[in-house]
Amino acid sequence: MTSEILEEIKKTIVQRLPERVQVAKVEFEGPEVVIYTKNPEIITENGDLIRNLAKDLRKRIIIRSDKSVLLDPEKTIDKIHEIVPEEAKITNIYFDEVTGEVVIEAKKPGLVIGKYGVTSREVVKNTGWAPKILRTPPISSEIIERVRNTLKHNSKERKKILQDLGTRIHQGSKYENEWARLTSMGGFREVGRSCMLLQTPNSRVLLDCGVNVAGDEKSAYPFLNVPEFSLADLDAVVISHAHLDHTGFLPYLYHYGYEGPIYCTAPTRDLMTLLQLDHIDIAHREDDPLPFNIKHVQKSIKHTITLDYGEVTDISPDIRLTLHNAGHILGSAMSHMHIGDGQHNMVYTGDFKYERSRLLEPATARFPRVETVVMESTYGGHEDVQPSRNNAEKQMMKTIYKTLKRGGKVLIPVFAVGRAQELMIVLEEYMRHGMIEEVPIYIDGMIWEATAIHTARPEYLSKDLRDQIFHMGRNPFISESFHKVQNVNERKDIVEGEPCIILSTSGMLTGGNSVEYFKWLSEDEKSTLIFVGYQSEGSLGRRIQKGWKEIPLKEEGKTKLYNVKMEIKTIEGFSGHSNRRQLMEYVKKLSPRPEKVIMCHGDAYKTLDLASSVHRSYKIETKTPLNLESTRIQ
Amino acid sequence: MTSEILEEIKKTIVQRLPERVQVAKVEFEGPEVVIYTKNPEIITENGDLIRNLAKDLRKRIIIRSDKSVLLDPEKTIDKIHEIVPEEAKITNIYFDEVTGEVVIEAKKPGLVIGKYGVTSREVVKNTGWAPKILRTPPISSEIIERVRNTLKHNSKERKKILQDLGTRIHQGSKYENEWARLTSMGGFREVGRSCMLLQTPNSRVLLDCGVNVAGDEKSAYPFLNVPEFSLADLDAVVISHAHLDHTGFLPYLYHYGYEGPIYCTAPTRDLMTLLQLDHIDIAHREDDPLPFNIKHVQKSIKHTITLDYGEVTDISPDIRLTLHNAGHILGSAMSHMHIGDGQHNMVYTGDFKYERSRLLEPATARFPRVETVVMESTYGGHEDVQPSRNNAEKQMMKTIYKTLKRGGKVLIPVFAVGRAQELMIVLEEYMRHGMIEEVPIYIDGMIWEATAIHTARPEYLSKDLRDQIFHMGRNPFISESFHKVQNVNERKDIVEGEPCIILSTSGMLTGGNSVEYFKWLSEDEKSTLIFVGYQSEGSLGRRIQKGWKEIPLKEEGKTKLYNVKMEIKTIEGFSGHSNRRQLMEYVKKLSPRPEKVIMCHGDAYKTLDLASSVHRSYKIETKTPLNLESTRIQ
Repeated sequence: MTSEILEEIKKTIVQRLPERVQVAKVEFEGPEVVIYTKNPEIITENGDLIRNLAKDLRKRIIIRSDKSVLLDPEKTIDKIHEIVPEEAKITNIYFDEVTGEVVIEAKKPGLVIGKYGVTSREVVKNTGWAPKILRTPPISSEIIERVRNTLKHNSKERKKILQDLGTRIHQGSKYENEWARLTSMGGFREVGRSCMLLQTPNSRVLLDCGVNVAGDEKSAYPFLNVPEFSLADLDAVVISHAHLDHTGFLPYLYHYGYEGPIYCTAPTRDLMTLLQLDHIDIAHREDDPLPFNIKHVQKSIKHTITLDYGEVTDISPDIRLTLHNAGHILGSAMSHMHIGDGQHNMVYTGDFKYERSRLLEPATARFPRVETVVMESTYGGHEDVQPSRNNAEKQMMKTIYKTLKRGGKVLIPVFAVGRAQELMIVLEEYMRHGMIEEVPIYIDGMIWEATAIHTARPEYLSKDLRDQIFHMGRNPFISESFHKVQNVNERKDIVEGEPCIILSTSGMLTGGNSVEYFKWLSEDEKSTLIFVGYQSEGSLGRRIQKGWKEIPLKEEGKTKLYNVKMEIKTIEGFSGHSNRRQLMEYVKKLSPRPEKVIMCHGDAYKTLDLASSVHRSYKIETKTPLNLESTRIQ
Repeated sequence: MTSEILEEIKKTIVQRLPERVQVAKVEFEGPEVVIYTKNPEIITENGDLIRNLAKDLRKRIIIRSDKSVLLDPEKTIDKIHEIVPEEAKITNIYFDEVTGEVVIEAKKPGLVIGKYGVTSREVVKNTGWAPKILRTPPISSEIIERVRNTLKHNSKERKKILQDLGTRIHQGSKYENEWARLTSMGGFREVGRSCMLLQTPNSRVLLDCGVNVAGDEKSAYPFLNVPEFSLADLDAVVISHAHLDHTGFLPYLYHYGYEGPIYCTAPTRDLMTLLQLDHIDIAHREDDPLPFNIKHVQKSIKHTITLDYGEVTDISPDIRLTLHNAGHILGSAMSHMHIGDGQHNMVYTGDFKYERSRLLEPATARFPRVETVVMESTYGGHEDVQPSRNNAEKQMMKTIYKTLKRGGKVLIPVFAVGRAQELMIVLEEYMRHGMIEEVPIYIDGMIWEATAIHTARPEYLSKDLRDQIFHMGRNPFISESFHKVQNVNERKDIVEGEPCIILSTSGMLTGGNSVEYFKWLSEDEKSTLIFVGYQSEGSLGRRIQKGWKEIPLKEEGKTKLYNVKMEIKTIEGFSGHSNRRQLMEYVKKLSPRPEKVIMCHGDAYKTLDLASSVHRSYKIETKTPLNLESTRIQ
């Protein structure tokens, strides 16, 4: 049946291409159709041809060269250096024999592509190899290297994975699309372990697969034992963003035999790899190992298909996925699912910020069609009004200014991904404009690596930052104010040294170096501890925030009492989540207006509060399902 | 693992029984534990022994004789006739070699049992055979004979089925009972195709499995394709009552390979067999065959385990079922499910009448425990107030009296099961008391067979009727006023003869002989057509009820116009469903008060109307799920 479809497609392709094009092979590669030809230059030079073909076939099309016309690799490398201008700063070139692609890593990938793709087309024409162009991040990233190496060394396996997947996706709908429904598997009327299963008569797609890192045995993981969930029947997993409460349980699926794809943006893949590896590492150190290991993270990398915002992709016989910016963290996405022949359209917002931040553009509120919206409600309570970002920044600067002036140090415990980079941009900006003293900003823990990943994906940043980076040639992340902290000795030097600002994980002082800094600085009256994120009940951060003056902490096996003499300050308004007003505004601005809004990702009372307000204000049906419930969306 | 449990049970049994009892074998037989012994008389004479043992084991226990001590069948028959008094009117004796039971069919089974079981114990003592005593219905019933024959001729297969089932039920819970949920598979926000799936971490039970006989391809059958439903994983089916909208799709399960049990009352088994066979028959005649046939009805009989009201039975590793009277039709039951070690208790009402009728006692409203109630809402709209039964009866009698007096005939189209018997009792009563003229009451179509089944199960009738039958020796169903119509000629004689009353199916004039009678009588001004039941939109009954005066009907291939000159009368109040007031009253009287009420079996607006009234009046959480939704109950 599938080969029939492929044959059909091949026939159409051969008919539609100019006669002189020799089509050697047509293959599915995941959601895409790959055409192997002996004269790729004819096609690549004629962009409209492929665009129209893709439109008619309603498939994404890739052109590659038949093996017989590939130039010798050595010669190809020379040729590339000849064609690509030196300013592109190529750092690495290697070949994927399986696909016939040449991977070119460069500091300025835009120059490898050339205006309207002219340079990269030149490469094809002269070498036969299809160039795959990757950015060499200005701050080198271990994770990105790891991901790229994994893909490089498993090219053959990946090809097989993608071919099998293509067969599955393009097999056609067996049943009529009479209904669609959503099973809540985690993160409903709670925050943590976000997970839901979208089901139609033809397919089953998992949206997010998180953990609750603060949860006990019963509340840590999503309900994968819900009767309608079966790994063997799963078509795809779609990931909204990298945070562990949305991705932490993903490796477990591969541990238990899942062989299907994950769809997400490229930064999400990289950041979630970072967070998952760290999660495994911490669990291991705390002697409470997770039910999966590094091997399964590796396996999930091999199965991940990255999508750009706006790229429409078939992910199952009857579901088309498009990711849109969610404004929450780098690469965070809203998933738009087009079901069947337009029977239903659903948007899962994931975590989102409906306000422009320093780092990112605000979340998308316009979709071609949408009947059901599943939205987060983290700050859905009517009391969840936070100061504007502008005010928050001003407060922050005032506090830092005062602290530095009196010769103190500023400690900001912060989550590695998202808020840390947002603060870095703010600090760099204010410092550059002379609004706070020029002191070293120390970046400790995973923040540095997460920042490196940000520098590899500038196209996902806010327009302001992109303008700075691409047009003004100034990347704030690589400012000289930032210093990576390498080891314990350095940390000691820092706390004993001159006034400075320290950004360190963990964000709630539940472990990591932020606790060490706190121990050193807690009795220093001149220094200040600034909380910028949520401190969950029971965390050390929360206790300090509440005003505890004596804190017992473990030090080399013994418990030591720390007197809190440093200034303690909480600044709200830096959240990556929409506040109550923004959530309400988002629903109001949604275009087109949805028929139904399903609430997730919030404490029970906030979820219910937001649902009832949306219903009363906009007369839209709202639902607040419990975990393990299934809700019809169509 | 299971044999371990069985070994454990056997050990306890041997320990607890007097030493002289020789236990030959202990087996599971469905939910029961069967003890085979060489001296059954010692146990059967000591009732407390078994009662206490059953209580300790929390299992139902049956005592049978080891083969070695069974008397020769010929001699056993003689012995039985010797022991049982002649007034018992034994009509049949046969042996089940597989189980060691002797089946004794008698017109007065009570006399075979004897006071406190003394007579039947005498049989055991003298013959070794365990007597299984069945009532010979005063009106002979083809269906009951068929069911009994099926069980008789498949004794060995049934034994195997029950043993396998016992193994499954007693395997113990594998997972903790953290949750329980209910998937709506049909009959939610609609009437017809009632079906829902109860799921716990350890088991899956289907409650009802009906069809919508008036439905089209898309709405006729329940959503068996819901992802969490799998025949292989199904532990049990529980049937509330015999009507096709609750049982019509049951044979399909066996057609598709279900091998598990059905639990229901004995009258439900017999009546549903009648209705299912008729359904297959009609579909066949209308050249629109169902996706299953008689073979599958047969298979479902073999897999049915009948329970009396109040009998507590394990039906899966973590669910205990008890059926309670629902007052809707003969054998109709509310299912009380006790989940886990009391984690949750749920009652599914099925269709129910919360008012005493002529035929049945009102529905049970008291349960040992109940947290969730799933209830019908057929007449849940606030406008669904119907006249009292008393008023309805008076109206009926007035109409009949006037019709007969002017020399007319009374035609009452009626459903075969339930309402027909209710009317028979009313008519017999009024006629016996001379309140209407003594004329023949003709019983046509399936009503006669359904009535025969009623006479086989008097213990399920109202206290009044039981008193009449058991103590006053008068069975109104076998009154001489009732005449079974045998063939077409007889029908002609009836319509051309003297004044009379005719009860005939179908109830909505959608086929069957009621239409024929209508054709004959429609132009007779002296006669009256009385509607006592719901006439659905589009049915002939509905058109006549609305006052159409010219009705085109097919007659031997041609369409003929019938002028409606007979009197048309609609009498409400005979319904087997609770009206709005009774539904509200039922929730109020429920003891204990449930935490949650889930509405099913009603048009969407009635379901919603009742739910909102229950919520407002009693402050109980209500839910109105759609088909294909899953709702947490725990």
